[in-house]
Amino acid sequence: MPVNSETAEQRRPIGVFDSGIGGLTVVSALRALLPNESIFYLGDTARVPYGGKSATTVQRYSLEIAKILLQENAKTVVVACNTASAVALTRLTESVPVSVTGVILPGAQAAVAATRTGHIGVIGTRATINSGAYERALRSLESQIVVTARACPLLVPLIEEGWLESKITDEIIMQYLGPLVDEGIDTLVLGCTHYPLLRNAIARLLGSDITLVDSAQNCANAVRELLIRENLRAPEANAGSLQVALTDPPDNFLRVAREALQLEVGEVQLREVTSHAP
Amino acid sequence: MPVNSETAEQRRPIGVFDSGIGGLTVVSALRALLPNESIFYLGDTARVPYGGKSATTVQRYSLEIAKILLQENAKTVVVACNTASAVALTRLTESVPVSVTGVILPGAQAAVAATRTGHIGVIGTRATINSGAYERALRSLESQIVVTARACPLLVPLIEEGWLESKITDEIIMQYLGPLVDEGIDTLVLGCTHYPLLRNAIARLLGSDITLVDSAQNCANAVRELLIRENLRAPEANAGSLQVALTDPPDNFLRVAREALQLEVGEVQLREVTSHAP
Repeated sequence: MPVNSETAEQRRPIGVFDSGIGGLTVVSALRALLPNESIFYLGDTARVPYGGKSATTVQRYSLEIAKILLQENAKTVVVACNTASAVALTRLTESVPVSVTGVILPGAQAAVAATRTGHIGVIGTRATINSGAYERALRSLESQIVVTARACPLLVPLIEEGWLESKITDEIIMQYLGPLVDEGIDTLVLGCTHYPLLRNAIARLLGSDITLVDSAQNCANAVRELLIRENLRAPEANAGSLQVALTDPPDNFLRVAREALQLEVGEVQLREVTSHAP
Repeated sequence: MPVNSETAEQRRPIGVFDSGIGGLTVVSALRALLPNESIFYLGDTARVPYGGKSATTVQRYSLEIAKILLQENAKTVVVACNTASAVALTRLTESVPVSVTGVILPGAQAAVAATRTGHIGVIGTRATINSGAYERALRSLESQIVVTARACPLLVPLIEEGWLESKITDEIIMQYLGPLVDEGIDTLVLGCTHYPLLRNAIARLLGSDITLVDSAQNCANAVRELLIRENLRAPEANAGSLQVALTDPPDNFLRVAREALQLEVGEVQLREVTSHAP
């Protein structure tokens, strides 16, 4: 029964992971773009954040988390985390038997399409910025591009605290972004899946001359193209669903994300990542 | 040779751990108070921070880290982390064959000694504050005490970013502490081992009417008393040393802490905490 087994293949969930809850911005974009797809989301909240950790450690964590997604029968893996995309995508692509989509290349493509002056700003976690992954992706698409990158380690905790609109948040944003504006960027890549939750504040502060490029939306577009290319789109009649699992019980930020993204998260499961001293 | 073996016992290092680098404030206080003691410090930077994670997960991590300290022949274990002290001290005390000192009880004792009005403020991570550990410790010492506690999740990342003296830092401190001042506290427990690095800024903003109680200093005093009580003080002629190990290579914050604490950290070792998906 080739048709039925093909349909069964197509009905398998899209596996999405992030270091924590931030990747739900990608889920929100996927749900809007692909409402008939089922999504299994796994946030590694027991070890969040990845952004200040070493590449070796982030690679190890990413492989462990991807393994759980495969146990959930994921038809494709989406790395909804800029840090993991920046330092672990190659390792994941080599190790995982399904296709893997990160957030860096889709974001870089959108930025290159958006820029008029060829001067692009990139913000992200320390690990993402230190990896140089955005610079490499941007220059691979357009060798003459000028990139100004800056790590903004306070933005994630600020978002997780739920201070999405406040005077202090505005000041921290300008402390980080002021120098990029002064250097003349005309496009800014929000290189962390948390950052779309600050999109309104950043847009208001930077004004309409600077185009914001959002990893989440562009990653969702890339996943859609991939599913079509691989003949893995769920049947149109399929009722899409969202299952969220975390490696540690949720705290305050799940509420923040749920409200800001207006996402129907339902009951959150736990998946333990066990560890032992050597 | 009872004398020699006793000396060998006493020469064993004090094992100190924290979720990351913040516990070096305790090390700094121990080094000043007990210069002839050797210290082995282990920061769980591969899984930092503990402050937003569940009690179960923090207990599991704490037991794993304490096990490594015992492998380093620690004569006593110091939990230089308020979160781990708040939620894992009982489990550690039951499981570890040497004495265990946390930061909560010493801090609470100092606060009760300092307060004149009996109204004490406590700040810490979300996990520490949610645990109610300070309230319990304070009330066990003085049942009539009034406690106002507040989680301040942004202070740790702010300190790790190195913004120890800035207008933004002042504003965030007052956003968190303003309500505690309004409620009339006369003593404030800095219930996170990172916070002594903000002591100057907090003291300047709160003024001299509010006494600051520092976990680090009081924990060091408690360790000194414990070592005397257990006849484990290193011989006076012993040249104390400090060995720092982390579970993930150090980033920016080690530099911040080293500079702010003027601590001779030397070469940092790595101790891997391996994990595997179930």
